[in-house]
Amino acid sequence: MTDTGSLNLQWSQAMIAGFVAAGITDAVISPGSRSTPLALAMLRQPRLRCHVAIDERSAAFFGLGIAKAQRRPALLLATSGTAPANWLPAIIEASHSGVPLIAISADRPPELQACGANQTVNQSAMFAPHMRASHALGAPHPGFDPGYLHRLAAQIHEQASWPYPGPVHINQPFREPLLPVAPAVGDDIPARLQAAHARPQPDAQQIAELAKHLSGRPGVMVCGEMPANPGQNAALAELASRLACPILAEPLSGLRFGPHDRSHVCVGYNRWLDAGAAHAFLKPEWILRFGAFPATRNLQNYVSGNAAMHIVVDPWPRWIDPSRQITHLLRADPTAFCQDLLRKKLEPAADGWLAAFSAQEKRAMQDREPDHIAAVLDALPAETALFIGNSLAIRQLDSLSGHADKTLHLYANRGASGIDGNISTAAGIASAKGRTVALIGDLTCQHDIGGLALTRGLDIVIVTVNNGGGGIFDYLPQHSLPEFIKGWRTPQEVDFEHAALAFGLSYQCAQSTSGLHSALGHALSSGGAHLIELKQL
Amino acid sequence: MTDTGSLNLQWSQAMIAGFVAAGITDAVISPGSRSTPLALAMLRQPRLRCHVAIDERSAAFFGLGIAKAQRRPALLLATSGTAPANWLPAIIEASHSGVPLIAISADRPPELQACGANQTVNQSAMFAPHMRASHALGAPHPGFDPGYLHRLAAQIHEQASWPYPGPVHINQPFREPLLPVAPAVGDDIPARLQAAHARPQPDAQQIAELAKHLSGRPGVMVCGEMPANPGQNAALAELASRLACPILAEPLSGLRFGPHDRSHVCVGYNRWLDAGAAHAFLKPEWILRFGAFPATRNLQNYVSGNAAMHIVVDPWPRWIDPSRQITHLLRADPTAFCQDLLRKKLEPAADGWLAAFSAQEKRAMQDREPDHIAAVLDALPAETALFIGNSLAIRQLDSLSGHADKTLHLYANRGASGIDGNISTAAGIASAKGRTVALIGDLTCQHDIGGLALTRGLDIVIVTVNNGGGGIFDYLPQHSLPEFIKGWRTPQEVDFEHAALAFGLSYQCAQSTSGLHSALGHALSSGGAHLIELKQL
Repeated sequence: MTDTGSLNLQWSQAMIAGFVAAGITDAVISPGSRSTPLALAMLRQPRLRCHVAIDERSAAFFGLGIAKAQRRPALLLATSGTAPANWLPAIIEASHSGVPLIAISADRPPELQACGANQTVNQSAMFAPHMRASHALGAPHPGFDPGYLHRLAAQIHEQASWPYPGPVHINQPFREPLLPVAPAVGDDIPARLQAAHARPQPDAQQIAELAKHLSGRPGVMVCGEMPANPGQNAALAELASRLACPILAEPLSGLRFGPHDRSHVCVGYNRWLDAGAAHAFLKPEWILRFGAFPATRNLQNYVSGNAAMHIVVDPWPRWIDPSRQITHLLRADPTAFCQDLLRKKLEPAADGWLAAFSAQEKRAMQDREPDHIAAVLDALPAETALFIGNSLAIRQLDSLSGHADKTLHLYANRGASGIDGNISTAAGIASAKGRTVALIGDLTCQHDIGGLALTRGLDIVIVTVNNGGGGIFDYLPQHSLPEFIKGWRTPQEVDFEHAALAFGLSYQCAQSTSGLHSALGHALSSGGAHLIELKQL
Repeated sequence: MTDTGSLNLQWSQAMIAGFVAAGITDAVISPGSRSTPLALAMLRQPRLRCHVAIDERSAAFFGLGIAKAQRRPALLLATSGTAPANWLPAIIEASHSGVPLIAISADRPPELQACGANQTVNQSAMFAPHMRASHALGAPHPGFDPGYLHRLAAQIHEQASWPYPGPVHINQPFREPLLPVAPAVGDDIPARLQAAHARPQPDAQQIAELAKHLSGRPGVMVCGEMPANPGQNAALAELASRLACPILAEPLSGLRFGPHDRSHVCVGYNRWLDAGAAHAFLKPEWILRFGAFPATRNLQNYVSGNAAMHIVVDPWPRWIDPSRQITHLLRADPTAFCQDLLRKKLEPAADGWLAAFSAQEKRAMQDREPDHIAAVLDALPAETALFIGNSLAIRQLDSLSGHADKTLHLYANRGASGIDGNISTAAGIASAKGRTVALIGDLTCQHDIGGLALTRGLDIVIVTVNNGGGGIFDYLPQHSLPEFIKGWRTPQEVDFEHAALAFGLSYQCAQSTSGLHSALGHALSSGGAHLIELKQL
């Protein structure tokens, strides 16, 4: 009979081989004892890049960043106890932003549950409400079939990827001894299970009807955060062109930066949509939405204003309608939807419609003063990944980014919009895609300060805008309370220079937008990990 | 009709007044918008100390530390989204270590759930498996009875406190506007509901039978982590004296430091119990256990060795028996149990029994070299709180602390034994009890590095033993793997001097035990927040 340690390792090797066969390339390991068989199987798998991260919360956001950039699942591994509990924020973010993650927690076997054994807590249901699937596995047992683990890995890979990418949890108990005396890991990778997932195609009947409704009538396209896909920007732009309608495009739609036709793209709406007048005379007969619900109040309010038709095109089984306006819900791939619609007869809206939007945009752009958003965007070489922090950073980018021919890859954690784990997520993106700039606020930086440990060896610049606490609260009614500074603004007292040096990042302080521009240019040209603090105090 | 903002505030004020009436004194607030009515009700409640912490994970461990030191619930408050998810590690620790915590998450109302609204996730079941109780409240509604919230607060206070202290979750939705135009908070505190919880008294019949079984026979008392209670040490010591048996007392039992009779207390068992010989000739006929299961393998193995009788005395509804040895389970208060037993006729064991243990103890103590544990303990003034980190730190303390007349208050997070949140927990203890020293490892320090932000203004010294990563793994079989350094030992590269300065702590480096002793003495006498790095590289 095979000894327990060998069973643990063979079982782990089979599972990891299954994941590698399914196409997984990256694992984020947080050190621990009970997880040893899986950790060793990962570390000895030459086709897996293993990242080691002490803090499981950072580890999970780092894995989220990798998966976000790669658009395929990354693996997380942690030992038993509170270790996997630290994953929860990143798991919720993955669930809400459609990012595939496979989280494997090691555990004590059933006979050590609920009897006061060390580091033993109820892990099997730890994340259940947020998971695409949860697997409470048994401990490795004599005579197990490695094919079971190969197939399970393929199945879990699919659950994390389709139809709605998101997190999957595996709870894996191990008995002692955890390893055999002379651990040897096999290198057999099973054949890849060929799985094909067709893009959801729109219904032909619906397309024909929609074409009739949209054609020749004043309408707007609104694009929130959506994953980039080949041909998507071109298809959206062409549809806007044929219908002579504007595209109100948020930064995370991917429509602001790239060589596609941007002549119909509106990016300054936060500067003119707040005028009640604009709402009144820019009243569309239809609104065609793609991606997440808008992040800024002005655009939210505009979208929530009445339009006779409110069409949402979304391939994922989620319900993006907080204002309860949807009249048509199309479960379809955006590109396929546009392409199908473009095959129909479409007339442009009347001349004045698009021109009214263009005039507003032009006026908004003329008013512009130099700002730190422009400084950052200008300094970025093409193809750079730009991660935007939540709270004020994403809203300022939305208002101020403009648009450009240069391709940039924009990312943010907008699933649950937390200020947690932002540095770690950016580091994960840098690990997967190379050169990355993160633009975040000072509280966001403090929240994930330990995430700086994961920037070592990466090409990454963290730009921290230090405006003395939660700048977004200045825009909320709490602003007028006497308790405002203590309870909401909360200026923090972290010395970011020392924080950077603690984790081996070089540090620069910028006091102006031009200073920021040159500091960022310098950091990007020298490579490595940098923290730039922009003082706006 | 009262406007929504006023309803929100009146509702929040009633709830917080109820908690204050129940005896709660401390709240840890993490800034956010949706939580505004409760935050303002807390901040304007003069009988509540409010602590503001940006990072909800740190905030929760800080609250855990306060509740651990005060032995009454602390309040946590966070806004919606991933913010409360960061509480999960501390909540699990509270659940497993019997620490009362009341965690209040603000939420969007039901009509904004599951429709893509910002920062909206499924919060109502977020922590369910780990909670003593979960309350998914409705949004404040016109005509509500403040007495409902007063009673609910009293009930939740009890759920968090009795019969088994632990975490309770309140999910509280609010509609907008969150506040009235001119927010005014009432100051009426309801009358305290008088609740009395008798200590569980042992069954008289069982006591009589046990007295017969224990009397005159060789046995051992084993005390794991247990909450301090007046008279407890004296009662345990007197029982040991009457039965002429040793007490194998872990540091967190509270039996090692204080002016009680320590003549039967054994503290060096990790140094002599590993000898198989000791097991053989120190074979008890009964084992009488109090508190948590032992942390060290030697004591675990000894306790798991067969004894005819294995008695566990535990007032809490938990099951502390990983080795499945219990023959008698007494749901009783330890002090009451000892006092009842002491009223019976008890004969001492034969002369040689206790003497054999004492001889082993004496020999173990003679072997001792000066070490950093002794240096720390010696430098502490009486009544200091000492927080011990998990992993290697707690085990070294267990092996090396000795015992002394000086009263020290020892704490650790041994519910789930995580290395997360240890600095924040120590800071919470310092906030509640004053001068606190934390003794932790380098990975533990890195894991909760952001927790240093919470030490500002406290009398606290963090002693970080930097032995180049996870020293505990040196004692495990993984040690011999070629991947050992990368995957388990993981020497970290944090510069702790810069980390201390980033958060406003003074920093000292010690290279020897004598250096540590003088650095700690200096830090304690000067007051404030300090980080001392003991380099053992």
